[in-house]
Amino acid sequence: MQEQIYHLQFAMDTFYFLVCGALVMWMAAGFAMLESGLVRAKNTTEILTKNFVLYAIACLMYLICGYQFMYGGGFFLSGIEALNVDETLASIASRENGFTGKAAYSKAADFFFQVVFVATAMSIVSGAVAERMKLWAFFAFAVVMCGFLYPMEGSWTWGGQPVFGLYSLADFGFSDFAGSGIVHLAGGAAALAGVLLLGARKGKYTKDGKAHAFPGSNMPLATLGTLILWMGWFGFNGGSMLKLADIGNAHGVAMVFVNTNAAAVGGALAALAVSMVLFRKADLTMVLNGALAGLVAITAEPSTPTPLQATIFGAVAGVLVVAAIIGFDKIKIDDPVGAISVHGVVGFFGLMIVPLTKDSASFLGQFVGAATIFVWIFVCSLIVWGVLKATMGIRVSEQEEYEGVDRSECGIEAYPEFVSTLK
Amino acid sequence: MQEQIYHLQFAMDTFYFLVCGALVMWMAAGFAMLESGLVRAKNTTEILTKNFVLYAIACLMYLICGYQFMYGGGFFLSGIEALNVDETLASIASRENGFTGKAAYSKAADFFFQVVFVATAMSIVSGAVAERMKLWAFFAFAVVMCGFLYPMEGSWTWGGQPVFGLYSLADFGFSDFAGSGIVHLAGGAAALAGVLLLGARKGKYTKDGKAHAFPGSNMPLATLGTLILWMGWFGFNGGSMLKLADIGNAHGVAMVFVNTNAAAVGGALAALAVSMVLFRKADLTMVLNGALAGLVAITAEPSTPTPLQATIFGAVAGVLVVAAIIGFDKIKIDDPVGAISVHGVVGFFGLMIVPLTKDSASFLGQFVGAATIFVWIFVCSLIVWGVLKATMGIRVSEQEEYEGVDRSECGIEAYPEFVSTLK
Amino acid sequence: MQEQIYHLQFAMDTFYFLVCGALVMWMAAGFAMLESGLVRAKNTTEILTKNFVLYAIACLMYLICGYQFMYGGGFFLSGIEALNVDETLASIASRENGFTGKAAYSKAADFFFQVVFVATAMSIVSGAVAERMKLWAFFAFAVVMCGFLYPMEGSWTWGGQPVFGLYSLADFGFSDFAGSGIVHLAGGAAALAGVLLLGARKGKYTKDGKAHAFPGSNMPLATLGTLILWMGWFGFNGGSMLKLADIGNAHGVAMVFVNTNAAAVGGALAALAVSMVLFRKADLTMVLNGALAGLVAITAEPSTPTPLQATIFGAVAGVLVVAAIIGFDKIKIDDPVGAISVHGVVGFFGLMIVPLTKDSASFLGQFVGAATIFVWIFVCSLIVWGVLKATMGIRVSEQEEYEGVDRSECGIEAYPEFVSTLK
Repeated sequence: MQEQIYHLQFAMDTFYFLVCGALVMWMAAGFAMLESGLVRAKNTTEILTKNFVLYAIACLMYLICGYQFMYGGGFFLSGIEALNVDETLASIASRENGFTGKAAYSKAADFFFQVVFVATAMSIVSGAVAERMKLWAFFAFAVVMCGFLYPMEGSWTWGGQPVFGLYSLADFGFSDFAGSGIVHLAGGAAALAGVLLLGARKGKYTKDGKAHAFPGSNMPLATLGTLILWMGWFGFNGGSMLKLADIGNAHGVAMVFVNTNAAAVGGALAALAVSMVLFRKADLTMVLNGALAGLVAITAEPSTPTPLQATIFGAVAGVLVVAAIIGFDKIKIDDPVGAISVHGVVGFFGLMIVPLTKDSASFLGQFVGAATIFVWIFVCSLIVWGVLKATMGIRVSEQEEYEGVDRSECGIEAYPEFVSTLK
Repeated sequence: MQEQIYHLQFAMDTFYFLVCGALVMWMAAGFAMLESGLVRAKNTTEILTKNFVLYAIACLMYLICGYQFMYGGGFFLSGIEALNVDETLASIASRENGFTGKAAYSKAADFFFQVVFVATAMSIVSGAVAERMKLWAFFAFAVVMCGFLYPMEGSWTWGGQPVFGLYSLADFGFSDFAGSGIVHLAGGAAALAGVLLLGARKGKYTKDGKAHAFPGSNMPLATLGTLILWMGWFGFNGGSMLKLADIGNAHGVAMVFVNTNAAAVGGALAALAVSMVLFRKADLTMVLNGALAGLVAITAEPSTPTPLQATIFGAVAGVLVVAAIIGFDKIKIDDPVGAISVHGVVGFFGLMIVPLTKDSASFLGQFVGAATIFVWIFVCSLIVWGVLKATMGIRVSEQEEYEGVDRSECGIEAYPEFVSTLK
Repeated sequence: MQEQIYHLQFAMDTFYFLVCGALVMWMAAGFAMLESGLVRAKNTTEILTKNFVLYAIACLMYLICGYQFMYGGGFFLSGIEALNVDETLASIASRENGFTGKAAYSKAADFFFQVVFVATAMSIVSGAVAERMKLWAFFAFAVVMCGFLYPMEGSWTWGGQPVFGLYSLADFGFSDFAGSGIVHLAGGAAALAGVLLLGARKGKYTKDGKAHAFPGSNMPLATLGTLILWMGWFGFNGGSMLKLADIGNAHGVAMVFVNTNAAAVGGALAALAVSMVLFRKADLTMVLNGALAGLVAITAEPSTPTPLQATIFGAVAGVLVVAAIIGFDKIKIDDPVGAISVHGVVGFFGLMIVPLTKDSASFLGQFVGAATIFVWIFVCSLIVWGVLKATMGIRVSEQEEYEGVDRSECGIEAYPEFVSTLK
């Protein structure tokens, strides 16, 4: 019977990973809808293509080499295909208590859950460089980011390896539950480097420094995308508990769900309030970004706060993201969907509030971790974007930008039959 | 080993709640897409904002006070954060049979599942008052509805408290499995009260009493929204079994899935048939509302009917909803998305058919329950809407309504680049 | 305690079926969005209606008779409503090892999982005959297909019955894990028969044999639909393991998830590469079809390949589907969404690659199975479409086709307010 219990526990934890992984994969649709709703109609097919293909590139690169870099798994996943049931049973049984020890689940389920995270990190970049970056420069960057840059910093954090053999983030007590830093800050840093080398969209900023609004072309899609991300985040954070099949962990996963939801709620309401104060209107795009900011902020530690604390953390993030979006526009860093603010700025914020509810974390440790991730990703990204700029070029021509990148890059309009007021 | 089994059972039931809760949360996207597809383009951003923010308000109010009113949970959920594993194990073990007794799962999972129901009830209202209600009057109502009105009737039903200490619905054998009455009729009653005080949209009814059609602006969104709701309903009804981890309950949950699906099928096909008879066309909006009607009807008891009975119940609901939509138009009650018909009328119908397949329920008991819910919500809503009307006002100006509330309330058009044939 | 373990195992396997079934049901939304994005705006409401109603018809017909034909279940599912817990426990206990033997789960969950497959098969047809087939001819075909044609070939394959008592596909070692042939090739065969009798859309082919492009009207919807299908496919293939609750099967389900994802990735990237070579553009519709082709190809056997093999299989399918789409246009078989290529051609391909990774399968056996399915469905479909053509007619009038079938069939435009460049 003990053996049967091991079987059930293994199956339950594996299924939990797979369900959570499927929800994170679903976030690919969330980013695609959000970004296609926030760009102008003439750049919609291209942003859809970027989002769809980057997911594929992320999965392929992580399969080929990323997982190995990060966790020492075998090349081409040579280790996950076969499973010796007897060995697995023995391995579970050798623990003193199979239900409170380290997780025992299929390595294939672990890979599936991990691979969708890589795609999430890369999805953050596509929005920030929208409407003017060359499609293939973006894909080239995705190859490097997903195959090397992300897995390397992942190996220092979740992988437990020392940073270039110099210092270990674990020694600093660095803690990032589901990736406010490892995924979101990293994506934001790569996006920032790209935007700096790419420059603003034509006509975005007037000569006297004012920002011209380029309204998103499809608000239902942007809202749908945000709600997809919100739903997917239950898998993103919930699955990062890494274990379900005992009372303590099951309750932990449930708290993560409650707090993840609460933080998004706080972010949405705070951004709405700020929007009313600043613009006297209920600016839907700010509300959506506020909810996403709440989600990013809680991601570094959704298991220790109370639901009220989670709501408050989310609310602060909701205020912060509106300020960041306005601030980046002031310094002419043009981010069409606000991705650098939502994922970069708030990702950093999320890391820094962990010590408020988690004793083992310290502000110093969190800062060291955040700085390590940011410097690594930002500097490497600058180099990669720079090389791409010098070789194939990263920006479409002025004429192509004016006509929309859908035509030049994809040859397909997103809404070919609808008469547009632009152009 | 007995302890390990308790761990597994607790984890399985908790995970089941979380998965079902995530599906119900997803219904927020369903309502947002359905309603944004059924209103005119100029009111789309506003209805999206309403749906998104009402979800946030519902979650916050239920966290702050609603859950406490309904089930006596602690203020700010003080009881759900910590979990004493030893106590929990002892509590499970003290039952004679841990697998057929009352559920044992994380309270946090229970809260998560309950909180998304509140949002569903409130989502029903937004559609009915679309295209002319002030955004902030709606939000103010949402605060009262989610924080007080819904939790109060919830305490009389699922919470098991006597109605104002006078009579107990449990004594009447009142039975509402997943909330045909508690959620849907309640939402419909609140919507009806709002619409009565708000009046019809300008130009909806001609002086000789005919209704002018305002076609929905985006049929793919309306269809997507309905399919999201259909999918989410598996969580809504399936999770309301409240327990999965034994053979009887697992089979019960499976029957709930089958019957929920069957009722939607019956509703869609019946509404299609009625539409062909009445209009000689396959009116997609009627088909969508028919499916939703089937879902609402089966919600009061999806575990006892046979699949064929569920199909028939759904089909009757599908006919009923078309009749109700046409009927409300005749008496000039203007409900842009048919929410009062789908959720209010059919919610009542769903309660009244429970005795057909469940011996412990009676028509009298169901009627007393329905009347209690309706009178409580309708009268209180009339008062709240009335106070709002007298103070801040609930209706936008004629000019704002003509130009669309997107501009006046949100300052953002939903489809800024697409040339419209209206205006 | 042994009894408690049986309870848990039964509950876990039942829940696994229900979650996977809900994901497959979600594919109905995927097909609806994909097809509505790929047709012209004037035919959008009708294709939505077809997709929505065919799902309802499929569920009803499978409930009434299809499940019985296929597996010998009772008429109107008379066998699934009641469950004798004692008998079930005895049945599980009588096995030597309850955890590695045949699955023990609720028959209702099995029905739910099976019924959504029928709808998938039928969904394939709607896209191919889009923009010119009469709505009610399509529904009439759906009744026959879902109630008889599909269940009959299902009885020969998954049902284990001999083909007309003549030969048994099991004897040939025919293997189709989740239905590359049984679902996808079958759907493609029915679609091909329909298209042959229906003819091409007006103006699709010029007199000198060139194909005129009719661009899809809404790329975000097409992309969303593909991502929904991708997500739903985890349930489609993952659930087809039919058992989760032991270590071997849980790992098997996890490998199925990984390989399903990998094949879609390979298909998308290969189609992108082909598109760049042929058109010098990143043709999003080809990329989407490439991903779907990868998914169809791996469906016949997602449990035995390595992830790298799955990627390669998907990539070959991605190339194949582009070639097939171009090829069908050359011979003037007009398939607006490429469904015959994606599901028919690649479904056959998927069957034929099974022997590469599965020893018990042979090329001969796979070919016999494929031929049996294709001939049965194609010939019967020709007859049914032929009878429909001779009686009620299957094609709308030229005038109706010119004006769009939304107006003639549904009386509702999909985007009534948006000015169109067509017409």
